[in-house]
Amino acid sequence: MSDTWLPSLITETPQAGFELAITLSRKGVRYTQPDPEVLQKLRSVYANDADALTAASQVIAINFQTVAAANNYWRK
Amino acid sequence: MSDTWLPSLITETPQAGFELAITLSRKGVRYTQPDPEVLQKLRSVYANDADALTAASQVIAINFQTVAAANNYWRK
Amino acid sequence: MSDTWLPSLITETPQAGFELAITLSRKGVRYTQPDPEVLQKLRSVYANDADALTAASQVIAINFQTVAAANNYWRK
Amino acid sequence: MSDTWLPSLITETPQAGFELAITLSRKGVRYTQPDPEVLQKLRSVYANDADALTAASQVIAINFQTVAAANNYWRK
Amino acid sequence: MSDTWLPSLITETPQAGFELAITLSRKGVRYTQPDPEVLQKLRSVYANDADALTAASQVIAINFQTVAAANNYWRK
Amino acid sequence: MSDTWLPSLITETPQAGFELAITLSRKGVRYTQPDPEVLQKLRSVYANDADALTAASQVIAINFQTVAAANNYWRK
Repeated sequence: MSDTWLPSLITETPQAGFELAITLSRKGVRYTQPDPEVLQKLRSVYANDADALTAASQVIAINFQTVAAANNYWRK
Repeated sequence: MSDTWLPSLITETPQAGFELAITLSRKGVRYTQPDPEVLQKLRSVYANDADALTAASQVIAINFQTVAAANNYWRK
Repeated sequence: MSDTWLPSLITETPQAGFELAITLSRKGVRYTQPDPEVLQKLRSVYANDADALTAASQVIAINFQTVAAANNYWRK
Repeated sequence: MSDTWLPSLITETPQAGFELAITLSRKGVRYTQPDPEVLQKLRSVYANDADALTAASQVIAINFQTVAAANNYWRK
Repeated sequence: MSDTWLPSLITETPQAGFELAITLSRKGVRYTQPDPEVLQKLRSVYANDADALTAASQVIAINFQTVAAANNYWRK
Repeated sequence: MSDTWLPSLITETPQAGFELAITLSRKGVRYTQPDPEVLQKLRSVYANDADALTAASQVIAINFQTVAAANNYWRK
């Protein structure tokens, strides 16, 4: 992964920050398993498993803590 | 999800902040599994599973950390 | 849950803060499964399961981080 | 649990803080399962289970974050 | 492991910081299981397991919180 | 465990801090299961289990957050 995919943690809105947290969570997976075909197959499994979805939401929540702090919580 | 669902992390009260943390937790799930019918089916399963409920409460707790910090803990 | 159950994160003592963290952890469960009869039944199961008790203690620990920070760690 | 068991988060040393984190972790369990006989039985199970021990260590780590922050990391 | 592998938490970019978080996550594993052959075998298992990949992404997320804070979130 | 094993959270380098985080993680286990023979046996099991290794790495990551903050991230 030599291309730039994370130039900054700063986003314009909280919602864009939440979506960046999703990107970070997925990248964490992709660095471990880079094969898109394997990922596709696994995705269709865990997207139908309640525990897996909660676990995914937890990783997003942890990454969102980082992004939100970076943006000083988008306080005006 | 092109509509705005997270304009701000600021809430008037701690309780509204806790409810926003619940929203964030659910959104984390929905970004991974957007099909409402699948979600409905999964919900009826994990809402009757003690471990799944504890896991859900944990994601809420993590998101509440973010929301509470954003609101400076609603200190007067 | 339209009634007020979380007017503030401020408590007089660390121990009261820990108990508030327990309340937050339980509320996280109740927002997902509001039926008290189901909760009662699940409770008797996980209260006898070591892993479930550790998981419950973990959610309390996460919520206690929030409450303790809100109270500036009850430093004099 | 009406008696006072957590008068303060302040400890003299990091090690005493770590031990307080252990107390907090155990209290999180006891508030959910107060029966000492049940706890004793569960303890002998999970103390011989690697995953349960790692999970216990994780709860201690989370509580130690709180205690360490409260003590400003025992910096001189 | 007497050689230096972590001279600093400071990185030039957020992306380099994320990659350092991956290094930290892997080192956490290697300190517990140093045998590269065992690690290789385990890797081929968990890289094809959705839950294991989410768990790996979570450890990266936690380490990224540390690295991002160390770098003051790469704010200009 | 009446002897002193944690006199300070301060370390000279980030790497020494990471190694202290490993010590903290192991101590969290040992306070729960002090018998070295049992620990030895469990260790040989979980050191060959991918999920257990990831879980161990996660506890280290959480403790490293504490140690890194204590050291102000070893910023010059």
